[in-house]
Amino acid sequence: MSTYSAPLRDMLFTMKVVGDLEATCALPGFEECSPDLVESILEEAGKFAAGVLDPINRAGDVQGARWKDGVVNAADGFKEAYASFCETGWNGMPASTEFGGQGLPTLVSTAVLEMWKATNHAFSLCQMLTLGAVEAISHHGSQELKARFLPNMVAGRWTGTMNITEPQAGSDLSVIRSRAVPEGDHYRVSGNKIFITWGEHDLAENIVHLVLARLPDAPAGVKGLSLFLCPKFLVNEDGSLGERNDLLCTSLEHKLGIHGSPTAAMSFGEKGGAIGYLVGEPGHGLACMFTMMNHARLNVGLEGLGVSERAYQHARAYALERVQGRTATGSKTIIGHPDVRRMLMDSKAKIEAMRALAYYAASQMDRAHAHPDAELRAQSQALVDLLTPVVKGWCTDNALGIASDGVQVHGGMGFVEETGAAQYLRDARITTIYEGTTGIQANDLIGRKIAREGGKTIRALIARMDADSRRLLDSRDASLSQIGLALHGAVGVLVDGVDWLLANYGEHPERCAAGAVPFLRLAGTVIGGWLSARTAEAAAAQLAAGEGDAAFLGAKVQTVRHYAAHVLVQAGALRDTVVGGADTTLSLADDQF
Amino acid sequence: MSTYSAPLRDMLFTMKVVGDLEATCALPGFEECSPDLVESILEEAGKFAAGVLDPINRAGDVQGARWKDGVVNAADGFKEAYASFCETGWNGMPASTEFGGQGLPTLVSTAVLEMWKATNHAFSLCQMLTLGAVEAISHHGSQELKARFLPNMVAGRWTGTMNITEPQAGSDLSVIRSRAVPEGDHYRVSGNKIFITWGEHDLAENIVHLVLARLPDAPAGVKGLSLFLCPKFLVNEDGSLGERNDLLCTSLEHKLGIHGSPTAAMSFGEKGGAIGYLVGEPGHGLACMFTMMNHARLNVGLEGLGVSERAYQHARAYALERVQGRTATGSKTIIGHPDVRRMLMDSKAKIEAMRALAYYAASQMDRAHAHPDAELRAQSQALVDLLTPVVKGWCTDNALGIASDGVQVHGGMGFVEETGAAQYLRDARITTIYEGTTGIQANDLIGRKIAREGGKTIRALIARMDADSRRLLDSRDASLSQIGLALHGAVGVLVDGVDWLLANYGEHPERCAAGAVPFLRLAGTVIGGWLSARTAEAAAAQLAAGEGDAAFLGAKVQTVRHYAAHVLVQAGALRDTVVGGADTTLSLADDQF
Repeated sequence: MSTYSAPLRDMLFTMKVVGDLEATCALPGFEECSPDLVESILEEAGKFAAGVLDPINRAGDVQGARWKDGVVNAADGFKEAYASFCETGWNGMPASTEFGGQGLPTLVSTAVLEMWKATNHAFSLCQMLTLGAVEAISHHGSQELKARFLPNMVAGRWTGTMNITEPQAGSDLSVIRSRAVPEGDHYRVSGNKIFITWGEHDLAENIVHLVLARLPDAPAGVKGLSLFLCPKFLVNEDGSLGERNDLLCTSLEHKLGIHGSPTAAMSFGEKGGAIGYLVGEPGHGLACMFTMMNHARLNVGLEGLGVSERAYQHARAYALERVQGRTATGSKTIIGHPDVRRMLMDSKAKIEAMRALAYYAASQMDRAHAHPDAELRAQSQALVDLLTPVVKGWCTDNALGIASDGVQVHGGMGFVEETGAAQYLRDARITTIYEGTTGIQANDLIGRKIAREGGKTIRALIARMDADSRRLLDSRDASLSQIGLALHGAVGVLVDGVDWLLANYGEHPERCAAGAVPFLRLAGTVIGGWLSARTAEAAAAQLAAGEGDAAFLGAKVQTVRHYAAHVLVQAGALRDTVVGGADTTLSLADDQF
Repeated sequence: MSTYSAPLRDMLFTMKVVGDLEATCALPGFEECSPDLVESILEEAGKFAAGVLDPINRAGDVQGARWKDGVVNAADGFKEAYASFCETGWNGMPASTEFGGQGLPTLVSTAVLEMWKATNHAFSLCQMLTLGAVEAISHHGSQELKARFLPNMVAGRWTGTMNITEPQAGSDLSVIRSRAVPEGDHYRVSGNKIFITWGEHDLAENIVHLVLARLPDAPAGVKGLSLFLCPKFLVNEDGSLGERNDLLCTSLEHKLGIHGSPTAAMSFGEKGGAIGYLVGEPGHGLACMFTMMNHARLNVGLEGLGVSERAYQHARAYALERVQGRTATGSKTIIGHPDVRRMLMDSKAKIEAMRALAYYAASQMDRAHAHPDAELRAQSQALVDLLTPVVKGWCTDNALGIASDGVQVHGGMGFVEETGAAQYLRDARITTIYEGTTGIQANDLIGRKIAREGGKTIRALIARMDADSRRLLDSRDASLSQIGLALHGAVGVLVDGVDWLLANYGEHPERCAAGAVPFLRLAGTVIGGWLSARTAEAAAAQLAAGEGDAAFLGAKVQTVRHYAAHVLVQAGALRDTVVGGADTTLSLADDQF
């Protein structure tokens, strides 16, 4: 088994170049942050990830979370790791200082979260759900709810969940049936929820469930949904834990992967109704939930990045160690076989592009949140809105291929579970599904994020990408010029796709939806390529100035060239599919399949 | 859970159009075969696959084969199914009549094998290994070995294995260490083998192991390898079973998938040496093994096709049943969501192209074997040699994506093991690895099959594809003309790739190897597209003549159009990667990864 090594050099370089780390630290509210501090935070996080989370990842897979009579025990080592995670302050680190978080830029917490995702996807979900619930409560909850629940949640003493899905209500929330009946200052909630991540466990003293349900007089559809906070144990006035609430974990799912993360079926109100508190206005449940959801979508994109990095490191370690056959390139181990090298280079190039995309989105969140100029804040928020489905959809889509190639690099050993490569593939497989499938991300992208505003934000982004590609194209550095040429072509291809979508969305939304996923892939490919190209440009400048680590910087330039030659070249086919593929996608009657 | 329905209509149509079923049945030796007989064979096979093999596939996965003290028990239902499989003659069906097989064309057995692969991949491997061993023994074994072993193996009373891999010798067979020492009329074999498919089990009375090992005076490397037949139980002169041989299954692997197929670690000669009989000449073990291997490679390609078909049917059933959200196309279930439809159409189009490719290769095997004209036989054999790595590499590569999309169509339910979609993904994952990874297939394709003969066979094939594409391009039928246009462009792109490979292979084999897998994908994409186009042409002709099932034929034309718009469009990027991608693939030092 390989050991995880946090890619600190690439993380910091990417944060500086595309995340504009210095400017981010200079934003109001982040004054205590500095690039040096960030570096030491990442170093510490890397040690925790490698030393605590990575070693228990396999136990999480093999043993998994176990249910018995409504009680769930986490896999061996998880409870201790979680206690340590909370004690050292990692749990609340991304939260605001108001309730005990560290109030660091999202750019910084994003890099840290990547490490948790990489080393222990299953474990990381507990924090993700908790902080998502914290965000929903802090945006929409009453002062009393905030005071009573948030400090313990940020500290990790209590964890949080999202109770959305029901057997008949997956992607379609309009058919949610769970009900809430008013009773004094609270409500009685009843219904059955499934796919509740970390819905029951023994890591924390209490679990704070956020539950989508309907009030008695609520209209049908999503406008009838309200959000309720139902703690596992009721909380007394003095903050101590009271009685057990009327809610129960009835079973855990047997899943393909992330076995360490208990996926609970929850039953609310079997004994008359779980006590719940309204969060936000009645009928605004969906809006409240979306606060969590957008947060979660970016996080799931980070899972795509994290699991890709870990699968790549695992495959790289094997390729550097396994001797098999005479290689064509002189290396003694299989990394010298050109096809093994191709798979590793493909993975590396995509991972670095995904990292650039995710960190760029994070830095825009910081600007949207903290920049003093309201117009810039709005621009950045629009960019975050545009990029959220791309980060989610594209990074997770890539992860499936990278984790699969990680198995392939191992040859026959990759198919043997003990090798560990297969776990990354199994774990990765959920990421294109939960928090909205890739299809749903893609529809969000073309509909709400592009067509609804007539393409304003994406056209502004395209203008920047186009300008950058022209500058690179004109570079005297042959590598940059090559990258610029490929990027310039790909940006033009993206323009074709955007033009076609905008021209057709009004009249033929179903034709646009048929090409939505290829379009999302096109957008990710090009935007990831653009940000990668910026890192190559910065690396080349440092190399030319004789600064920095030449081996790292040289690899960066070559890796981005690889991205241009192996990934950006796919843009044309994606555009062709978007523009010319809807006809046949929609051509058959149901019974002709 | 869905139930399997053999795609008889598409199978027969494809056999007739690209496999030239009538001409195949007219070849010397196949006179008893007729299209009507073939149709009834396929119907019966379909019933067996759906009625016997499909229902136990999940037990194979969940329970798997179990090892205890050297004894292996197959999963529940496998023993009974195997007995029935042999009794009804399915086991030996593809074998020659000489030892009890039915001597049917490979084209026919290929369609039948597709059904076993689709419904029970793990189960199907037992027959595949047995018939591979039968082929190696019948080509290279002495008359005595043939008489003593083959009839029972063809009947399935005894099964066969390939013992190749050792812990240090995976893809590189030159470092095999197992030894064989002469003793009278036999040898004493000793060594440790791993990854032995169906190496130990309780389905049959005896297991005939073919083992690669070295004689005492053998040279190093692959030229020192000889092949030995080591039965689990020795066989007396009268054919009855004698003593247990000195060989043992020491454990089974815990694998990602195909749990129903026991993957054994075998120990030979712990008590002084397993008795073995030389098969073929000393030092010719590799050649003998390749007889099995080529057979197995085409079969593994069929696994890619079979598991894709089954995963597609499973996803289709769910998509036709699951209600979720208002669809954009009017369907009541999720098949009406354009992106679900896109995934199903992509799968369908690729599956039908893979089927066309596999059946075409099979029909060429029949010609190579039975055609009275020696020159045509040689041409067909060259085509089979060229296509074998493409069938193996491309069909399995596609299968990973199709099985993964099968999970995606199910949404969250796809990640829950009980749904069954995940098994197809886990099972499929081995197919790009065993019997030679995709990288090895691709190197075989560009080296032995193209460069070594200066591209003669592929250029002849390209000439046919080009002529067909021009004919289609000129068609008055708009659909065919569209397909022809896309095909014509893609054939030209393939020519670029071939030209580049031939120009560079001599001087830069490592650069060619860097693009070998993209080239294999390109070849599969274009050849699959060409054969698909021929099926569309035939379907359009029948439609125009008012013959046949209009719904099926119309779907065929649309499906091939879909292939053109969604798959053939990828050819250009693959070519660009082959031609322009080697530089960066080979650019980094090992420690820069």
